[in-house]
Amino acid sequence: MKDTDQLKALVEGAVQNHLQQWRHKHPENLYAPVCYALEAGGKRLRPLLVLVGYQIFGDHVEEALPAALAIEVFHNFTLLHDDIMDKSEIRRNQPTVHIRFSDNNAILSGDAMAFLAYSLLMELKSNRLEEVIALFTRTAVEICEGQQMDMDFEARLDVSVEEYLEMIRLKTAVLMACSLKSGALLGGSTDEEADLLYEAGINLGLAFQLQDDYLDTSGDETTFGKKIGGDILADKKTFLLTEALRSARGTRREELISWLGRDKLPGDRKIKAIQSIFADLQIKEKTLLKIGEYSSKAIATLSLLKKESFRKEPLLALFSSLIKREL
Amino acid sequence: MKDTDQLKALVEGAVQNHLQQWRHKHPENLYAPVCYALEAGGKRLRPLLVLVGYQIFGDHVEEALPAALAIEVFHNFTLLHDDIMDKSEIRRNQPTVHIRFSDNNAILSGDAMAFLAYSLLMELKSNRLEEVIALFTRTAVEICEGQQMDMDFEARLDVSVEEYLEMIRLKTAVLMACSLKSGALLGGSTDEEADLLYEAGINLGLAFQLQDDYLDTSGDETTFGKKIGGDILADKKTFLLTEALRSARGTRREELISWLGRDKLPGDRKIKAIQSIFADLQIKEKTLLKIGEYSSKAIATLSLLKKESFRKEPLLALFSSLIKREL
Repeated sequence: MKDTDQLKALVEGAVQNHLQQWRHKHPENLYAPVCYALEAGGKRLRPLLVLVGYQIFGDHVEEALPAALAIEVFHNFTLLHDDIMDKSEIRRNQPTVHIRFSDNNAILSGDAMAFLAYSLLMELKSNRLEEVIALFTRTAVEICEGQQMDMDFEARLDVSVEEYLEMIRLKTAVLMACSLKSGALLGGSTDEEADLLYEAGINLGLAFQLQDDYLDTSGDETTFGKKIGGDILADKKTFLLTEALRSARGTRREELISWLGRDKLPGDRKIKAIQSIFADLQIKEKTLLKIGEYSSKAIATLSLLKKESFRKEPLLALFSSLIKREL
Repeated sequence: MKDTDQLKALVEGAVQNHLQQWRHKHPENLYAPVCYALEAGGKRLRPLLVLVGYQIFGDHVEEALPAALAIEVFHNFTLLHDDIMDKSEIRRNQPTVHIRFSDNNAILSGDAMAFLAYSLLMELKSNRLEEVIALFTRTAVEICEGQQMDMDFEARLDVSVEEYLEMIRLKTAVLMACSLKSGALLGGSTDEEADLLYEAGINLGLAFQLQDDYLDTSGDETTFGKKIGGDILADKKTFLLTEALRSARGTRREELISWLGRDKLPGDRKIKAIQSIFADLQIKEKTLLKIGEYSSKAIATLSLLKKESFRKEPLLALFSSLIKREL
């Protein structure tokens, strides 16, 4: 059984191998943005989840590498397209693909990445291949649904916390769950075991996204890789803003609403003002509580899985390092 | 064995069934553009190729319907994204999706359609499923490569006829070939038979795209569903322009080049001027000759297939009705 550092090295090696191929593929303008996006790194969290999920059940983790890579490539495809739709200009401390290249490049190279992800899946040698493809496909459709809900929320002030949680379940959590479950299936789990990992992944994903929201107002710009307060400036309906809109009353609510839609302000005035409303309403504390709730659920679900604890240990360690990442 | 009209009805029925489901799916803003695009109709040529290809080998054509539908949905996904990239405003006599909805809607609903296509493939009950998915995936990557080449050509005056043909092979022909071959595989063909149909499909696809280029300068706007001269106005490197740039000499070449890049002209001046250069250079005649060359190859390839002629008849009829569509 490989430890987490070995798994990370395995993922990175596989990414580099494929980059080597793609760098020489024609037409260059299609593959350059693919390479640019994948070279930028990122946490490689999802492929790691595939491999850690695999190792709970199986002993030849290399078998799952094509799935790990497929999910990483797919994830990067979603970032290319989301960054166009959200007009995000910086990711992982560098210009996003549509800024560095063009909108058209980001659309088309993104499309290519979606299909390259399937090509990678087709490299799997496993009798669970069809199940994995079906799961991956269902997940991909759900992610589109989540992104649409996110865009729909932009124009609304009455998004409920339940709607918000459903949106991040679709937009973020299902891919983490899919990663863990794919690993499990390829490792030879039963259907019940794979479903338990899926459920743990959903809760982990919810905790992870809530924390991403949290870090937007309280994180460190360099480690976070995005501008702090970016969500606030864009009036993004994060958990924090959704909860603030729900709980603010009277003039505080009016003040909060009056800041929305104003994006041409000098310096950080809007960010500071909204952060201060969040503080008054104890929004950070509420968010931390919610993060704790979902991460506990993730761990509790995993504890229902009847496997030796040395098999589950790496996943538990990954859970807690993720949740703690900057709190 | 079903005749072509029955097959068309089968495709249309299946499309309507799925539209019925998608119309009620949430979030509405994701599925409305999907339905809008599929309701607009079009020739449903590719699904028909799947079914006609199937019937050369198999007797339960309904089995291939999910693949037929998958390819139609996939084809429409490429149109959504291509129309953004090419800034096309009209398709099938109505506003394109990015005009009727928005760029973001066209990007995201397009993405969803790509994955809905895979969902449809997963409905197939066939021991050739993995082969079909692998073929479909390879085809999808190639189509992205073709679209990139097409965009790369925009800025170039020195595109060779060979490069042009490679571009339309990737952008258009491989999907027709994939349609026929998927049908064949699902119908129970041997690998060699499936490959013959693929090759026939490539030649058909090349003839089809050359004809599309031809119709842009000589077609009827209503039947064609697009504005006549649209390619000329956009300086699109069609076979006609590529061939004209290759064969024009001296002042005629200078005149031709001087028209390129000028898109803000009153009325149809540019269209008429370039059409007249095409006439001087006998470009239409050269194009018709090339169309004839590839359609003959398609038919010759099909004749190598050792099957009863009543099995091949519907495909031959489809070939000739396609090639003749408006000449």
